[in-house]
Amino acid sequence: MPRNVLLLPGDGIGPEIVAEAEKVLNKINEQFSLGLSFDKALVGGAAIDAEDTPLPETTLSKAREADAILLGAVGGPQWDSLPMAKRPEKGLLGLRSNLELFGNLRPAILYPQLASASSLKPEVVSGLDILIVRELTGGIYFGQPRGVRQLESGERQGYNTYQYTESEIRRIGRVAFEAAQQRGKKLCSVDKANVLEVTVLWREIMEDLKREYPDVELSHMYVDNAAMQLVRAPKQFDVIVTGNMFGDILSDEAAMLTGSIGMLPSASLNADKQGMYEPCHGSAPDIAGKGIANPLATILSAAMMLRYSLNEEKAAQAIEAAVSKVLDQGLRTADIMAEGGTQVSTREMGEAVLAAL
Amino acid sequence: MPRNVLLLPGDGIGPEIVAEAEKVLNKINEQFSLGLSFDKALVGGAAIDAEDTPLPETTLSKAREADAILLGAVGGPQWDSLPMAKRPEKGLLGLRSNLELFGNLRPAILYPQLASASSLKPEVVSGLDILIVRELTGGIYFGQPRGVRQLESGERQGYNTYQYTESEIRRIGRVAFEAAQQRGKKLCSVDKANVLEVTVLWREIMEDLKREYPDVELSHMYVDNAAMQLVRAPKQFDVIVTGNMFGDILSDEAAMLTGSIGMLPSASLNADKQGMYEPCHGSAPDIAGKGIANPLATILSAAMMLRYSLNEEKAAQAIEAAVSKVLDQGLRTADIMAEGGTQVSTREMGEAVLAAL
Ligand SMILES: CC(C)[C@H](C(=O)O)[C@@H](O)C(=O)O
Ligand SMILES: CC(C)[C@H](C(=O)O)[C@@H](O)C(=O)O
Repeated sequence: MPRNVLLLPGDGIGPEIVAEAEKVLNKINEQFSLGLSFDKALVGGAAIDAEDTPLPETTLSKAREADAILLGAVGGPQWDSLPMAKRPEKGLLGLRSNLELFGNLRPAILYPQLASASSLKPEVVSGLDILIVRELTGGIYFGQPRGVRQLESGERQGYNTYQYTESEIRRIGRVAFEAAQQRGKKLCSVDKANVLEVTVLWREIMEDLKREYPDVELSHMYVDNAAMQLVRAPKQFDVIVTGNMFGDILSDEAAMLTGSIGMLPSASLNADKQGMYEPCHGSAPDIAGKGIANPLATILSAAMMLRYSLNEEKAAQAIEAAVSKVLDQGLRTADIMAEGGTQVSTREMGEAVLAAL
Repeated sequence: MPRNVLLLPGDGIGPEIVAEAEKVLNKINEQFSLGLSFDKALVGGAAIDAEDTPLPETTLSKAREADAILLGAVGGPQWDSLPMAKRPEKGLLGLRSNLELFGNLRPAILYPQLASASSLKPEVVSGLDILIVRELTGGIYFGQPRGVRQLESGERQGYNTYQYTESEIRRIGRVAFEAAQQRGKKLCSVDKANVLEVTVLWREIMEDLKREYPDVELSHMYVDNAAMQLVRAPKQFDVIVTGNMFGDILSDEAAMLTGSIGMLPSASLNADKQGMYEPCHGSAPDIAGKGIANPLATILSAAMMLRYSLNEEKAAQAIEAAVSKVLDQGLRTADIMAEGGTQVSTREMGEAVLAAL
């Protein structure tokens, strides 16, 4: 049975970095006889320009049928003034929500070869390896009602709704507890239970789940304190689980602790382990088309895809080993360039990974 | 006309640190013939224990009549299992909201004497001086409806409402633009306008205000990117303005960049410049009663109070100079202790500031 991978290059540097990941996937497909077939579709600003919608029907139906999806990035200043419903981000959010990709895994790992890129002191971050599990299809991103209304006083009020049901909390909780079982067995649930009722329920359900995972040590932390502790002593964390909005903020903060956000992949999974994989970084419109973007986060996202959705652990490891090898060789794109490195272009980096495979 | 300062020691280390600030204020009151009189009241857990409510009527009426308020901190594990409405935090939130203290100023300053305390590399944080202006009486902290409801399916759903009116945004915007005018003339407004309608309105109003402050350079940043940029290159910021929830998270992150959160004061002001002043750190129940807490953030909060609410700039500067002097002398409480320093207790630190005055 052939398995289908959908490539969604998207906007900005998306097409350049997905092109390199595609070459790597093609080679791995042959080497390991994976029987993968590939398809492509438009999403985000590219889809707006071509079809006047950030998530065309054909893209959504291809995505539903795919065994896994590899996405570049969406968004750019040329679409920033469009109304909310027509913005590139709605393509991404629509995919997450239509495919029920509620489980977002965002590792923040410091590559020893790139330790000096961090803005933190080496002793604070050396060996850093955190996994942030972010709920991705609920919370304030999708809560209703939402909008801007006219008050009786004549002025306008903007409003959004932050909401979670017990079952939404429970299913992301399970993803996090299971991830913790595979790792350091420590789970920190982040909320604002001293102020927000929705996160009081969040904390209660996490406490409840604890009994099913007696080997995992569960702690709770307020989001403001978590933002502080990530800066002060990030290695205290193993797995962090939190809602959509807090996860957006904390996962970007955690990623930046490594100094190499161009290296970090992510996975967004549904209950059937179907998944969408994408780099943690964005579409970087300022460097798009210059051939200098770092393709490694996308290539590592392809490895995550092989591991989680396609059950091809060996192929995943082969890609990860190849990436490690090019780093050992001193090859660096501009974003991770440092003294002693050899600066290479997006394509040269991709070719080097191919050669290392 | 005598002016009245209300002291609210609160919980945890609150009473210890406010006691030292009180001594400093008494001395400054004499030295500069300020004509201040002082009163005290209960808030938070201390008030719950004594009067079964986190914000007794007498405390609220004293607060309304005071020219300025100095608060220690509230909260502690012994009150964590109380229902939301009876928790210590509600005392703090009730004061903010009843006195309409919508303008929260949170500086993140790196003291050169304490540069080594930061977990960031010296070149990234040396000379750091950011001001975070956080909206404090609106947003998701106070939005209605809120609670936990039973759905038809039988399961519960928690919900909160994130909302801002045009006038709420405009008044905090003005505070921030005016602060930027007094400083580096750069204002960064933080929102999540690519996802949340309420922050689309926020961005629109900030853009609108820009015309009234042509000397200030306004930029916008998404909150996830702001959390990243604070780690990557915090010195790019001068003044940051944002809503209640994002401000809670980002101000704590920014404070921790300095490594010395025990040094950072804050002010919460209303439209009449009446204000509540408090250290950025919390009640630290784990070290309460041990006499080792750092009183300097509270002493510096007293200085901010003299400056903003009592219009006594010289007295404020005298306190700040005294604090700088004890740091130069090498005196350090446990939280900021480093090689070469002389470790002192809470009270010894307070006495040293008195002596330096
Ligand atoms: C582009 C944006 C809608 C998105 C989000 O906020 O989820 C991005 O920041 C992310 O974290 O994947
Ligand atoms: C104690 C808590 C309610 C409070 C807040 O969230 O505002 C605190 O974290 C703060 O920042 O002053």
